[in-house]
Amino acid sequence: MRIGILGATGAVGRQMITSLEERQIVPEELRLFASERSAGKELNFFEKGIPLEVITKDRLLGLDYVLGAVSNPLAKEWGPVIQEAGGVFIDNSSAYRLDEDVPLVVPEVNGEDALNHHGIIANPNCSTIITMMAVSPIQKISPIKKMITSTYQAVSGAGIGGLNELTNQVNDIREGKELTSEIFPKQIAYNCIPLIGSLNENGYTTEEMKMQNEGRKILHNHMDVSCTCVRVPVYRSHAICVSLQCEKELGIEEVNEALDKAPGILHDSDHFPTPLETSNQDLVAVGRIRKDLVFDGGISLWCCGDQIRKGAATNAIQILEYLLAH
Amino acid sequence: MRIGILGATGAVGRQMITSLEERQIVPEELRLFASERSAGKELNFFEKGIPLEVITKDRLLGLDYVLGAVSNPLAKEWGPVIQEAGGVFIDNSSAYRLDEDVPLVVPEVNGEDALNHHGIIANPNCSTIITMMAVSPIQKISPIKKMITSTYQAVSGAGIGGLNELTNQVNDIREGKELTSEIFPKQIAYNCIPLIGSLNENGYTTEEMKMQNEGRKILHNHMDVSCTCVRVPVYRSHAICVSLQCEKELGIEEVNEALDKAPGILHDSDHFPTPLETSNQDLVAVGRIRKDLVFDGGISLWCCGDQIRKGAATNAIQILEYLLAH
Repeated sequence: MRIGILGATGAVGRQMITSLEERQIVPEELRLFASERSAGKELNFFEKGIPLEVITKDRLLGLDYVLGAVSNPLAKEWGPVIQEAGGVFIDNSSAYRLDEDVPLVVPEVNGEDALNHHGIIANPNCSTIITMMAVSPIQKISPIKKMITSTYQAVSGAGIGGLNELTNQVNDIREGKELTSEIFPKQIAYNCIPLIGSLNENGYTTEEMKMQNEGRKILHNHMDVSCTCVRVPVYRSHAICVSLQCEKELGIEEVNEALDKAPGILHDSDHFPTPLETSNQDLVAVGRIRKDLVFDGGISLWCCGDQIRKGAATNAIQILEYLLAH
Repeated sequence: MRIGILGATGAVGRQMITSLEERQIVPEELRLFASERSAGKELNFFEKGIPLEVITKDRLLGLDYVLGAVSNPLAKEWGPVIQEAGGVFIDNSSAYRLDEDVPLVVPEVNGEDALNHHGIIANPNCSTIITMMAVSPIQKISPIKKMITSTYQAVSGAGIGGLNELTNQVNDIREGKELTSEIFPKQIAYNCIPLIGSLNENGYTTEEMKMQNEGRKILHNHMDVSCTCVRVPVYRSHAICVSLQCEKELGIEEVNEALDKAPGILHDSDHFPTPLETSNQDLVAVGRIRKDLVFDGGISLWCCGDQIRKGAATNAIQILEYLLAH
């Protein structure tokens, strides 16, 4: 088995390398692709230096799986080339997520969809993955009809630049210097920014619409989702506040039981998990489960997960594992 | 006119002094009450030192208005004494808020309720004040039936101790020291904590239930409110994400018009206000107004306001102004 990683030097690309190591996936060959700036440098994989290469059509030949951690335009450019070269592209961008012939997969939720691929499998949006992990055990009790969500999204969702911007701003404030905001539209240090992505005509951002559009595709339902995405000054792990209503009335006990049994979920009904506690690990923590006071027979909950790991890199590696196992 | 401030040295008490100055309310006498620790010290009012006194029954005599910025037990202890001494107690604690004969007032929303007092008027919960400011212009179009809210609450909601805990933790992280959390149940620096107040049997916190219980009393309606309260690493200003449904279907334009005309509201329909921008001023900013995707004919919005000012001290001073004007 030969694996390639597209965008190996970014936050998600580096995590993909680490997740391969942690999960003991040892390909015959690992090829790491990055921009020209990084060409000639190396990244370690199982303590061996792997050169960073600029991607070419030739260097994609022979790869069985290519993990994508690049922007939409690059994913659009190289996806068809990978397909043609006979590889499977597991792509973390949003370029293909809603394409009809591209499965959109969270392995614990709809792993079987991955098997119907035609050379490209899409990794969902980070907040969507974490939320779907938390609500899919409930969807198995009764189909979800309505969901209102608001997010508390970490700066690393914007990559390494987002992490640095938070650190730099905190330092600049401490030193009384003037701040600059380049990655985020306003100061993120000690602030919350209710705008992630760009605004659609309906007043929702691209990021907010993913929760409904991708959520429906993953759960195979037609739920209505109203979402507000907010950036918060947290380094890693997104948190999401969820109010939902299913077709049938839910009991707290059956919801707790379903979550206890669900793979990939850390659940303690008395618990109030935080982003910090769920950083740098692969589980999604769910807590604050209670009867919703607006939705008849509905549920309110709070969930958190590391969005570089389960929200991106680990989920992609799990898709790979699923393909290998089936 | 003689005014007293109970709890003058806390974050809210100090802001009450500043707000009196800013709004040019000049009493014949201002008496400042604090704990024994502060006795003998002074705080400035219009550049004149006012001694901090320990409260006694005698020292309450002759005061026309007493502004309360103390805990529930102290408010419970001194409220009846102030009443008996012939003063009006404008109390920021939650001790009296749901009492039938105590008005619960946001002057721009239900100022007229203040006139029916029997010696005690309650200042609502901070997140509730900010949210009611944002939604009451909509309630005037059509009564609100359902509201799902999640909060992004600043550390100063927990007083000066909360401010210090965030600063100390950020510094300790920078210096590689071990952290301590005394005010908040978990680390707040670079984290979000979905638990404010204590848990009720229904799984909601005391803080979360205020949005429904106090909201109903302020708006004189019987709306259902499901709320999740979350502490975020922001110094001042709370933000609240709101999805709501009224009796009749709402149009975006009429909502925007209503907010444009509403007193105390900073509204720009294209805007995404942040806690930082609304810190240390008295308006409530509303933005991200759009059709809710779950509630038929409903609205989604985001609002922020300085919770020490409009969420506490300024609102209390505005109640005083309302009484003086009527």
